[in-house]
Amino acid sequence: MPKLEDVAKRANLSKTTVSRVLNKRGYLSQKTIDKVYQAMEELDYHPNVVARQLYKNKTDLIGILLPTVANPFFGELTAALEDRLYQQGFKVIIGNSMNNPQKEADYLQQLLIKQVDGLIVGSHNQGIQQYRHAGLPVVSIDRIMNQDIPVIASDNYRGGQLATERLIAQGVRKIIHTNGPHDLATPAQRRRLAYEDSMKEHNLQPITYELDFNISTADKDKVFQRIFVEHPDVEAIFASNDTDAVQIIQLAQASGRQVPRDLLVIGYDGTQLVRELVPQLTTIIQPIAQIAQTAVEVLQRRLAKQTKQKEYLLPVSLWEGTTG
Amino acid sequence: MPKLEDVAKRANLSKTTVSRVLNKRGYLSQKTIDKVYQAMEELDYHPNVVARQLYKNKTDLIGILLPTVANPFFGELTAALEDRLYQQGFKVIIGNSMNNPQKEADYLQQLLIKQVDGLIVGSHNQGIQQYRHAGLPVVSIDRIMNQDIPVIASDNYRGGQLATERLIAQGVRKIIHTNGPHDLATPAQRRRLAYEDSMKEHNLQPITYELDFNISTADKDKVFQRIFVEHPDVEAIFASNDTDAVQIIQLAQASGRQVPRDLLVIGYDGTQLVRELVPQLTTIIQPIAQIAQTAVEVLQRRLAKQTKQKEYLLPVSLWEGTTG
Repeated sequence: MPKLEDVAKRANLSKTTVSRVLNKRGYLSQKTIDKVYQAMEELDYHPNVVARQLYKNKTDLIGILLPTVANPFFGELTAALEDRLYQQGFKVIIGNSMNNPQKEADYLQQLLIKQVDGLIVGSHNQGIQQYRHAGLPVVSIDRIMNQDIPVIASDNYRGGQLATERLIAQGVRKIIHTNGPHDLATPAQRRRLAYEDSMKEHNLQPITYELDFNISTADKDKVFQRIFVEHPDVEAIFASNDTDAVQIIQLAQASGRQVPRDLLVIGYDGTQLVRELVPQLTTIIQPIAQIAQTAVEVLQRRLAKQTKQKEYLLPVSLWEGTTG
Repeated sequence: MPKLEDVAKRANLSKTTVSRVLNKRGYLSQKTIDKVYQAMEELDYHPNVVARQLYKNKTDLIGILLPTVANPFFGELTAALEDRLYQQGFKVIIGNSMNNPQKEADYLQQLLIKQVDGLIVGSHNQGIQQYRHAGLPVVSIDRIMNQDIPVIASDNYRGGQLATERLIAQGVRKIIHTNGPHDLATPAQRRRLAYEDSMKEHNLQPITYELDFNISTADKDKVFQRIFVEHPDVEAIFASNDTDAVQIIQLAQASGRQVPRDLLVIGYDGTQLVRELVPQLTTIIQPIAQIAQTAVEVLQRRLAKQTKQKEYLLPVSLWEGTTG
């Protein structure tokens, strides 16, 4: 097995320089880097990252636990988080909990046992006991975990208010809201609260339909159909995410309702992808880049034991489409 | 520092049982698992994964290098890959190359030095020398890397043919194709080849506009606008991905062309998300679940040094929307 000093000899450089190349420390010319890598290749030398991790007692890995990167919000968020973490010298282990509490618990159990230096969590399951005993920095995105874990969220109350007030201002009275299960302590429940407050302020009756996180598109269809059956006079729907909003629009159109003529619809999240694919959808934009930046900064401060702040609230904005 | 035997003593179980819980080996009752974890918590015991990795000389980590999970195709692919790998006992380190060759090279350099057991690569950059000297199993998705690395791709030639033949069958003659740069040896170039072959078979003139992978939506707009300026009589466009197709439809409509009345448009990829958000878009569906499953199977066979097969071609299908 070749050693570091063999690489140094072959590259005609000092051991210190080779070590600096391997650890990416200080200024290094491309020529030096190339010489070291060429010598490594010629000797088939592989420095052992795992051994180094053991020695340093850190892995430079951050775990990210989210429902699924197949969802455009979490896809864009993960890309932004990974890019920020990469710039700070971290690599990312990703787990898609798929809203499966068992999988989430399993990931936690495995990641927490010294495989990562910290965790960023945006998953939907509650009551997973391990979080409390993490013993390593955890940052939560849009999710209230427990009293020790900082939460980074966009201003969901303001978002719910923006959407509801915009609909009311257009003269409609019968506005229905769709959201996740009430018993999940997500900051997203503040959208519902804001909707209910805004409705009551205008002496309007708030009506919220709850959707489970795990249900299929077909099952969602049934819930949305039920809205039209139970409230044929519905004038507007404020959906808690954009894919639901688009599905509602399609169902409405299939049953002969024109949007926005017969029904106003506003979504939530406003990812870049959805704004590109469905620019006509009125929605509330969550500031994904800012959320990612803040999450990484807070995690780093927690790693350095520098902060105790509990909540970070980021501003939302309105995407003025034509649907609501 | 507490040891494994302290945990065993506290939980009133044998060391073997505790070890089996930590390594998830064999049948274990929930009661046993809970007892072990409770004892671990009470003693603040953390088994050292990194030390175990060093001992076993494997990390049970797989690296995934892709352009970005913010793209719906790669987002859904990553979710599917992660789920399959998780079922096989692996965790995933993810790198978004963002089409940045420097970042991709950097990831490779770091991951290859014994941090992962294998790599799944779907990134767009070529000529990255390190792949050749990987010294660990690499599987490529939709990307020709070099002669040693197996490629898993959907049948891009068939996809290009399906799209082009469908347009020709509708009676249009002036059909333009958009694709990535010609010099990238992607299997996706076979879509272009199939388009050109199909056009020539019908004595039609193939015209392909090339788009760089790195350009912004605004710069893409300019290229697409150019199509309408340089070919005002264009009757159909076959775009190499769905987001481009949707952008083209929006531009066409903004300039007064109705789709499909004045212009037919067919996209490519057919992710679940795009089919949900823009069901009217006619597109070619890549079988993401099958691609992920095959990639993980091939990687495992490579890890076991069991296969030399070079190419795996998976079937595409047509999503019959109304745009083309």
